[in-house]
Amino acid sequence: MKLVTFSTGSAQHVGVVDPDAGVVHDVSALLPAGASVLDVIEGWAELGPALERDAAAQPRHALDSVRLHAPIPVPRRDIFCVGKNYRDHVVEFGRSGYDQPDRSEALPEYPVVFSKATTSVNGPFDDIEPHTDVTSELDYEAELGVIIGRGGRGISRADAYDHVWGYTIINDFTARDLQRKHKQWLIGKSLDTHAPMGPYAVSADEIDDVTSLQVQSVVNGEPRQSAPVKDLIFDIPELIATLSAGITLRPGDLIATGTPAGVGIGFDPPRFMVSGDVVEVSITGLGSQRNRIA
Amino acid sequence: MKLVTFSTGSAQHVGVVDPDAGVVHDVSALLPAGASVLDVIEGWAELGPALERDAAAQPRHALDSVRLHAPIPVPRRDIFCVGKNYRDHVVEFGRSGYDQPDRSEALPEYPVVFSKATTSVNGPFDDIEPHTDVTSELDYEAELGVIIGRGGRGISRADAYDHVWGYTIINDFTARDLQRKHKQWLIGKSLDTHAPMGPYAVSADEIDDVTSLQVQSVVNGEPRQSAPVKDLIFDIPELIATLSAGITLRPGDLIATGTPAGVGIGFDPPRFMVSGDVVEVSITGLGSQRNRIA
Repeated sequence: MKLVTFSTGSAQHVGVVDPDAGVVHDVSALLPAGASVLDVIEGWAELGPALERDAAAQPRHALDSVRLHAPIPVPRRDIFCVGKNYRDHVVEFGRSGYDQPDRSEALPEYPVVFSKATTSVNGPFDDIEPHTDVTSELDYEAELGVIIGRGGRGISRADAYDHVWGYTIINDFTARDLQRKHKQWLIGKSLDTHAPMGPYAVSADEIDDVTSLQVQSVVNGEPRQSAPVKDLIFDIPELIATLSAGITLRPGDLIATGTPAGVGIGFDPPRFMVSGDVVEVSITGLGSQRNRIA
Repeated sequence: MKLVTFSTGSAQHVGVVDPDAGVVHDVSALLPAGASVLDVIEGWAELGPALERDAAAQPRHALDSVRLHAPIPVPRRDIFCVGKNYRDHVVEFGRSGYDQPDRSEALPEYPVVFSKATTSVNGPFDDIEPHTDVTSELDYEAELGVIIGRGGRGISRADAYDHVWGYTIINDFTARDLQRKHKQWLIGKSLDTHAPMGPYAVSADEIDDVTSLQVQSVVNGEPRQSAPVKDLIFDIPELIATLSAGITLRPGDLIATGTPAGVGIGFDPPRFMVSGDVVEVSITGLGSQRNRIA
């Protein structure tokens, strides 16, 4: 199922998308009053079957007539993000000198985990603020986002996929100069609008083999990144096991799993985003997002 | 005003504490149904005056008869935390080798900001889980926590204190081995129970000069840390201005401002926490917390 948060006026609604028919069904009538996509994910055991059965009979809108927001516009906490999790990206990042004072192309021995603040979340087709007052080195990072369904602590690799509700696309926009200056990455990763998410939250049952999905980005029509999820250094079960070893995961938690090679700092000289640039990110089966730098 | 979240049975209530009388007033009747301390802070313009006027007439409990929880048991997002923000701590941290590969005693040029996950929050007198399956290097960090009242972006140094609702104590417990292994600090800082908060959320009007407050910790009766807030390298207005330059701050956001010298890794050899150890943290005017390692 492809869940969305959409609006036709000011209010946001939960929708179920049928991309082939090009429609979104407003499923509000099947949910408790005011329920969000987060609530649906948390109550999935009950609400999932009801949506499967009755969504198609609910009021429909043409998909191109509504505004799609991030499927989870306000996460319950920061997005867990993984750095340097594709081999070729580790090399380009090390070579760029942005990993001062390391300048290391060595692969990480353990997952590098930081967070993006909740207020960085943005819609899949909304403009990106360039924040030129604080950065002149804006970069993109196409990533697979994992959405936790059943929470827990001490989740084993073997059980990890049982705790995954589904997937979405997250573009982990990064102010490289701030990432470098502040040493820890939170500020450089968390500027307002710098985490476009969606368009869909796609339930795991729609994805046969998540490792076969291809993560791609295109800037101003030029292909930049393309790699399968199986190239992850630390795979999804490893990330869930590592995080949950000491941190209780909750329904709706988001893990941005890392970005492949081909980001702006991978070029020499680096190619940073400027106003008017358009970044498109797509992942097999998860749709595409398209954001313009304002 | 000293706000608390307390319970006598299973339900949590909002209370206003009179420490001299040793009582907490249950102010539920003055608040919208189900309101939390977060809601009070968000609605402070209206609710603050009502509490000032009527709290003392509300039902009272002896303070030592109730359980005090973290004043904000479930923050709306991760706690913003500042690393290496007291000069002497920067030196002890650099010397310890935990800042590999830097081993640098140089002061940071810009605030080092990371986050603690929401699930790390713990009560001011509750046990700390040692997490011996993932760490053998548990350390404490006594810190002043700033609670944002009015949100905003682009907050200037001059206006910063207008956006502060008040203050609390946060012990930024840290698994040093995880902090080092994962490079970015989130995992090492975010283990469940590793952010005891409180006992009180103290409104800013109770604090004449926050820079004069003394941050102290005592381990098993032995004084370890003691420094005034004025020793911060990046002061409270600077932290608020830096964060809000590109990140919209929200009511109830928490900023743990950094820890003074005297943590466990400051000793040679390091002195890590083990089961049965008791850490007490106090800050002038904000009370004390006392946590035992389980």
